[in-house]
Amino acid sequence: MNSNQTMVKMVFDRWNSLLKSFDTTLNSFTDEQLEKETAPGKNRGIYLLGHLIAVHDAMLPLLDLGSKQYPELHKIFIESTDKTISEIPSAKELRAFWNAQKESLTEKFNKLSADEWFEKHTSVSAEDFAKEPYRNKLNIILTRASHLAYHQGQFMLLK
Amino acid sequence: MNSNQTMVKMVFDRWNSLLKSFDTTLNSFTDEQLEKETAPGKNRGIYLLGHLIAVHDAMLPLLDLGSKQYPELHKIFIESTDKTISEIPSAKELRAFWNAQKESLTEKFNKLSADEWFEKHTSVSAEDFAKEPYRNKLNIILTRASHLAYHQGQFMLLK
Repeated sequence: MNSNQTMVKMVFDRWNSLLKSFDTTLNSFTDEQLEKETAPGKNRGIYLLGHLIAVHDAMLPLLDLGSKQYPELHKIFIESTDKTISEIPSAKELRAFWNAQKESLTEKFNKLSADEWFEKHTSVSAEDFAKEPYRNKLNIILTRASHLAYHQGQFMLLK
Repeated sequence: MNSNQTMVKMVFDRWNSLLKSFDTTLNSFTDEQLEKETAPGKNRGIYLLGHLIAVHDAMLPLLDLGSKQYPELHKIFIESTDKTISEIPSAKELRAFWNAQKESLTEKFNKLSADEWFEKHTSVSAEDFAKEPYRNKLNIILTRASHLAYHQGQFMLLK
Protein backbone atom coordinates (compact mmCIF):
# COMPACT_ATOMS: atom_id res chain seq x y z
CA MET A 1 0.00 0.00 0.00
CA ASN A 2 1.68 3.25 -1.10
CA SER A 3 1.01 6.58 0.57
CA ASN A 4 -1.72 7.69 -1.86
CA GLN A 5 -3.52 4.37 -1.36
CA THR A 6 -3.22 4.75 2.41
CA MET A 7 -4.73 8.21 2.34
CA VAL A 8 -7.56 7.16 0.00
CA LYS A 9 -8.39 4.32 2.37
CA MET A 10 -8.40 6.67 5.38
CA VAL A 11 -10.81 9.09 3.74
CA PHE A 12 -13.11 6.41 2.28
CA ASP A 13 -13.21 4.54 5.59
CA ARG A 14 -14.65 7.75 7.10
CA TRP A 15 -17.02 8.38 4.19
CA ASN A 16 -18.34 4.81 4.10
CA SER A 17 -18.71 4.59 7.85
CA LEU A 18 -20.69 7.84 8.02
CA LEU A 19 -22.84 6.82 5.07
CA LYS A 20 -23.60 3.49 6.70
CA SER A 21 -24.42 5.15 9.98
CA PHE A 22 -26.85 7.57 8.29
CA ASP A 23 -28.35 4.68 6.36
CA THR A 24 -28.93 2.64 9.53
CA THR A 25 -30.57 5.62 11.22
CA LEU A 26 -32.73 6.30 8.16
CA ASN A 27 -33.92 2.71 8.02
CA SER A 28 -34.85 2.83 11.70
CA PHE A 29 -37.26 5.75 11.11
CA THR A 30 -40.82 5.60 9.84
CA ASP A 31 -41.96 8.10 7.21
CA GLU A 32 -43.89 9.87 10.01
CA GLN A 33 -40.72 10.27 12.07
CA LEU A 34 -39.00 11.87 9.08
CA GLU A 35 -41.68 14.57 9.09
CA LYS A 36 -40.60 15.63 12.59
CA GLU A 37 -38.25 18.53 13.29
CA THR A 38 -34.78 17.66 14.63
CA ALA A 39 -35.29 20.36 17.28
CA PRO A 40 -38.14 22.87 17.75
CA GLY A 41 -38.30 25.17 14.71
CA LYS A 42 -35.34 23.45 12.98
CA ASN A 43 -35.03 21.29 9.84
CA ARG A 44 -37.23 18.24 9.50
CA GLY A 45 -35.69 14.82 8.96
CA ILE A 46 -37.10 14.68 5.42
CA TYR A 47 -35.38 17.96 4.56
CA LEU A 48 -32.01 16.68 5.84
CA LEU A 49 -32.42 13.55 3.74
CA GLY A 50 -33.20 15.54 0.59
CA HIS A 51 -30.38 17.99 1.37
CA LEU A 52 -27.81 15.20 1.63
CA ILE A 53 -28.94 13.57 -1.63
CA ALA A 54 -28.70 16.95 -3.41
CA VAL A 55 -25.25 17.74 -1.97
CA HIS A 56 -23.90 14.28 -2.80
CA ASP A 57 -25.40 14.50 -6.30
CA ALA A 58 -23.50 17.73 -6.90
CA MET A 59 -20.23 15.84 -6.35
CA LEU A 60 -20.63 14.06 -9.71
CA PRO A 61 -19.81 17.00 -12.02
CA LEU A 62 -17.22 18.25 -9.51
CA LEU A 63 -15.44 14.88 -9.66
CA ASP A 64 -15.83 14.69 -13.44
CA LEU A 65 -18.01 11.60 -13.05
CA GLY A 66 -20.96 12.76 -15.13
CA SER A 67 -24.00 14.97 -14.72
CA LYS A 68 -26.23 15.28 -11.68
CA GLN A 69 -28.84 12.55 -11.41
CA TYR A 70 -31.33 14.57 -9.34
CA PRO A 71 -30.88 18.16 -10.55
CA GLU A 72 -34.45 19.03 -9.51
CA LEU A 73 -33.47 18.64 -5.85
CA HIS A 74 -31.05 21.56 -5.92
CA LYS A 75 -33.70 24.28 -5.73
CA ILE A 76 -35.69 22.53 -3.01
CA PHE A 77 -32.94 21.25 -0.73
CA ILE A 78 -29.95 23.55 -1.29
CA GLU A 79 -31.26 26.90 -2.51
CA SER A 80 -34.31 26.86 -0.24
CA THR A 81 -34.58 26.38 3.50
CA ASP A 82 -36.97 23.84 5.00
CA LYS A 83 -40.70 24.58 4.95
CA THR A 84 -40.45 27.34 2.34
CA ILE A 85 -41.44 25.09 -0.58
CA SER A 86 -44.65 23.14 -0.09
CA GLU A 87 -44.32 20.59 -2.92
CA ILE A 88 -41.37 18.37 -2.11
CA PRO A 89 -40.73 14.71 -2.95
CA SER A 90 -42.26 12.19 -0.53
CA ALA A 91 -40.26 10.26 2.05
CA LYS A 92 -40.81 7.16 -0.07
CA GLU A 93 -39.34 8.83 -3.16
CA LEU A 94 -36.37 10.26 -1.26
CA ARG A 95 -35.62 6.87 0.29
CA ALA A 96 -35.54 5.37 -3.23
CA PHE A 97 -33.22 8.15 -4.47
CA TRP A 98 -30.95 7.65 -1.42
CA ASN A 99 -30.64 3.92 -2.02
CA ALA A 100 -30.06 4.25 -5.77
CA GLN A 101 -27.49 7.00 -5.18
CA LYS A 102 -25.59 4.92 -2.63
CA GLU A 103 -25.01 2.18 -5.20
CA SER A 104 -24.35 4.53 -8.07
CA LEU A 105 -21.77 6.62 -6.19
CA THR A 106 -19.94 3.55 -4.91
CA GLU A 107 -19.78 2.11 -8.42
CA LYS A 108 -18.45 5.36 -9.89
CA PHE A 109 -15.98 5.97 -7.05
CA ASN A 110 -14.55 2.47 -7.34
CA LYS A 111 -13.45 3.18 -10.90
CA LEU A 112 -10.90 5.80 -9.84
CA SER A 113 -7.39 4.72 -8.88
CA ALA A 114 -5.70 6.14 -5.77
CA ASP A 115 -3.57 8.42 -7.93
CA GLU A 116 -6.63 9.72 -9.76
CA TRP A 117 -8.15 10.84 -6.44
CA PHE A 118 -5.19 13.21 -6.15
CA GLU A 119 -5.93 14.84 -9.49
CA LYS A 120 -7.69 18.20 -9.64
CA HIS A 121 -11.45 18.49 -9.33
CA THR A 122 -13.38 20.40 -12.01
CA SER A 123 -13.82 23.71 -10.19
CA VAL A 124 -10.12 24.52 -9.92
CA SER A 125 -7.96 25.60 -12.86
CA ALA A 126 -4.82 23.67 -13.82
CA GLU A 127 -2.82 26.79 -12.99
CA ASP A 128 -4.23 27.13 -9.46
CA PHE A 129 -4.00 23.40 -8.88
CA ALA A 130 -0.26 23.48 -9.58
CA LYS A 131 0.10 25.81 -6.59
CA GLU A 132 -2.69 24.26 -4.47
CA PRO A 133 -2.47 20.47 -4.92
CA TYR A 134 -4.80 19.89 -1.96
CA ARG A 135 -7.70 21.01 -4.17
CA ASN A 136 -7.97 17.46 -5.44
CA LYS A 137 -10.86 15.04 -5.86
CA LEU A 138 -10.20 13.29 -2.56
CA ASN A 139 -10.68 16.58 -0.74
CA ILE A 140 -14.25 16.68 -2.09
CA ILE A 141 -14.96 13.37 -0.34
CA LEU A 142 -13.23 14.61 2.83
CA THR A 143 -15.29 17.79 3.05
CA ARG A 144 -18.56 16.01 2.17
CA ALA A 145 -17.79 13.43 4.87
CA SER A 146 -17.66 16.11 7.56
CA HIS A 147 -20.81 17.71 6.09
CA LEU A 148 -22.51 14.32 6.39
CA ALA A 149 -21.29 13.89 9.99
CA TYR A 150 -22.67 17.34 10.87
CA HIS A 151 -26.16 16.47 9.63
CA GLN A 152 -26.02 12.91 10.99
CA GLY A 153 -25.56 14.47 14.44
CA GLN A 154 -28.84 16.31 13.91
CA PHE A 155 -30.67 13.46 12.19
CA MET A 156 -30.00 11.20 15.20
CA LEU A 157 -32.00 13.59 17.38
CA LEU A 158 -35.24 12.41 15.73
CA LYS A 159 -34.92 9.19 17.78
CA MET B 1 4.58 20.47 -1.30
CA ASN B 2 5.11 16.70 -1.35
CA SER B 3 2.22 14.25 -1.13
CA ASN B 4 2.41 13.74 2.65
CA GLN B 5 2.39 17.49 3.18
CA THR B 6 -0.64 17.77 0.87
CA MET B 7 -2.56 15.17 2.87
CA VAL B 8 -1.64 16.72 6.21
CA LYS B 9 -2.87 20.07 4.93
CA MET B 10 -6.16 18.54 3.72
CA VAL B 11 -6.90 16.96 7.10
CA PHE B 12 -5.80 19.95 9.19
CA ASP B 13 -7.78 22.35 7.03
CA ARG B 14 -10.86 20.33 8.00
CA TRP B 15 -9.90 20.05 11.66
CA ASN B 16 -9.08 23.75 12.04
CA SER B 17 -12.16 24.86 10.18
CA LEU B 18 -14.45 22.72 12.35
CA LEU B 19 -12.71 23.84 15.52
CA LYS B 20 -13.10 27.47 14.51
CA SER B 21 -16.73 26.96 13.68
CA PHE B 22 -17.43 25.35 17.08
CA ASP B 23 -15.49 28.12 18.76
CA THR B 24 -17.51 30.84 17.03
CA THR B 25 -20.76 29.13 18.01
CA LEU B 26 -19.58 28.69 21.60
CA ASN B 27 -18.65 32.36 21.90
CA SER B 28 -22.07 33.37 20.59
CA PHE B 29 -23.82 31.53 23.45
CA THR B 30 -24.40 32.75 26.99
CA ASP B 31 -23.77 30.37 29.90
CA GLU B 32 -27.56 30.10 30.24
CA GLN B 33 -27.89 28.96 26.62
CA LEU B 34 -25.32 26.24 27.26
CA GLU B 35 -27.60 24.83 29.97
CA LYS B 36 -30.31 24.19 27.35
CA GLU B 37 -30.87 20.82 25.69
CA THR B 38 -30.01 20.57 21.97
CA ALA B 39 -33.40 18.87 21.46
CA PRO B 40 -36.04 17.79 23.99
CA GLY B 41 -34.54 15.16 26.30
CA LYS B 42 -31.14 15.22 24.53
CA ASN B 43 -27.67 16.40 25.61
CA ARG B 44 -27.26 19.91 26.95
CA GLY B 45 -24.82 22.32 25.30
CA ILE B 46 -22.58 22.23 28.38
CA TYR B 47 -22.34 18.44 28.16
CA LEU B 48 -21.32 18.58 24.49
CA LEU B 49 -18.64 21.13 25.34
CA GLY B 50 -17.23 18.96 28.15
CA HIS B 51 -17.47 15.86 25.96
CA LEU B 52 -15.43 17.44 23.16
CA ILE B 53 -12.73 18.67 25.58
CA ALA B 54 -12.46 15.17 27.08
CA VAL B 55 -12.32 13.44 23.67
CA HIS B 56 -9.72 15.89 22.34
CA ASP B 57 -7.70 15.53 25.55
CA ALA B 58 -7.55 11.77 25.03
CA MET B 59 -5.76 12.36 21.71
CA LEU B 60 -2.58 13.40 23.56
CA PRO B 61 -1.46 9.95 24.80
CA LEU B 62 -2.75 8.39 21.57
CA LEU B 63 -0.52 10.71 19.54
CA ASP B 64 2.40 10.24 21.93
CA LEU B 65 2.24 13.94 22.80
CA GLY B 66 2.11 13.57 26.58
CA SER B 67 -0.47 12.83 29.25
CA LYS B 68 -4.06 14.03 29.41
CA GLN B 69 -4.45 17.54 30.76
CA TYR B 70 -8.03 17.09 32.02
CA PRO B 71 -8.21 13.41 33.09
CA GLU B 72 -11.04 14.20 35.54
CA LEU B 73 -13.37 14.96 32.63
CA HIS B 74 -13.31 11.37 31.33
CA LYS B 75 -15.71 9.96 33.91
CA ILE B 76 -18.16 12.87 33.62
CA PHE B 77 -18.21 13.45 29.87
CA ILE B 78 -17.24 10.13 28.27
CA GLU B 79 -18.16 7.35 30.69
CA SER B 80 -21.38 8.99 31.84
CA THR B 81 -24.29 10.33 29.86
CA ASP B 82 -25.65 13.82 30.42
CA LYS B 83 -27.62 14.58 33.58
CA THR B 84 -26.46 11.43 35.41
CA ILE B 85 -23.72 13.25 37.39
CA SER B 86 -24.86 16.33 39.26
CA GLU B 87 -21.48 17.89 40.05
CA ILE B 88 -19.92 18.95 36.78
CA PRO B 89 -17.55 21.84 35.99
CA SER B 90 -19.25 25.19 35.34
CA ALA B 91 -19.66 26.71 31.88
CA LYS B 92 -17.05 29.30 32.88
CA GLU B 93 -14.52 26.58 33.78
CA LEU B 94 -15.21 24.57 30.63
CA ARG B 95 -14.81 27.65 28.44
CA ALA B 96 -11.40 28.24 30.05
CA PHE B 97 -10.40 24.59 29.46
CA TRP B 98 -11.58 24.81 25.84
CA ASN B 99 -9.54 27.94 25.16
CA ALA B 100 -6.40 26.64 26.86
CA GLN B 101 -6.72 23.31 25.04
CA LYS B 102 -7.09 24.99 21.66
CA GLU B 103 -3.73 26.72 22.08
CA SER B 104 -2.02 23.76 23.64
CA LEU B 105 -3.12 21.28 20.94
CA THR B 106 -2.12 23.63 18.13
CA GLU B 107 1.29 24.14 19.68
CA LYS B 108 1.86 20.38 20.09
CA PHE B 109 0.49 19.50 16.64
CA ASN B 110 2.73 22.07 14.95
CA LYS B 111 5.83 20.27 16.22
CA LEU B 112 5.16 17.16 14.12
CA SER B 113 6.45 17.01 10.55
CA ALA B 114 4.20 15.76 7.74
CA ASP B 115 6.04 12.43 7.71
CA GLU B 116 5.57 12.02 11.47
CA TRP B 117 1.80 12.29 11.04
CA PHE B 118 2.03 9.09 8.99
CA GLU B 119 3.74 7.20 11.81
CA LYS B 120 1.77 4.80 13.99
CA HIS B 121 -0.32 6.03 16.90
CA THR B 122 0.22 4.47 20.33
CA SER B 123 -2.69 2.03 20.36
CA VAL B 124 -1.50 -0.04 17.40
CA SER B 125 1.45 -2.44 17.54
CA ALA B 126 4.40 -2.08 15.16
CA GLU B 127 3.48 -5.47 13.73
CA ASP B 128 -0.13 -4.53 12.95
CA PHE B 129 0.93 -1.13 11.67
CA ALA B 130 3.20 -2.75 9.08
CA LYS B 131 0.07 -4.36 7.60
CA GLU B 132 -2.33 -1.48 8.33
CA PRO B 133 -0.44 1.75 7.63
CA TYR B 134 -3.66 3.77 7.72
CA ARG B 135 -3.66 3.40 11.53
CA ASN B 136 -1.44 6.44 11.71
CA LYS B 137 -1.52 9.65 13.76
CA LEU B 138 -3.19 11.65 11.00
CA ASN B 139 -6.12 9.24 11.06
CA ILE B 140 -6.73 10.22 14.70
CA ILE B 141 -7.21 13.84 13.59
CA LEU B 142 -9.41 12.72 10.69
CA THR B 143 -11.75 10.68 12.89
CA ARG B 144 -11.88 13.34 15.62
CA ALA B 145 -12.71 15.92 12.96
CA SER B 146 -15.83 14.01 11.91
CA HIS B 147 -16.71 13.46 15.58
CA LEU B 148 -16.46 17.22 16.08
CA ALA B 149 -18.61 17.89 12.99
CA TYR B 150 -21.26 15.48 14.32
CA HIS B 151 -21.56 17.34 17.62
CA GLN B 152 -21.24 20.77 16.01
CA GLY B 153 -24.38 19.92 14.04
CA GLN B 154 -26.16 19.38 17.35
CA PHE B 155 -24.55 22.30 19.17
CA MET B 156 -25.80 24.71 16.47
CA LEU B 157 -29.38 23.76 17.35
CA LEU B 158 -29.11 25.71 20.62
CA LYS B 159 -29.39 28.90 18.56
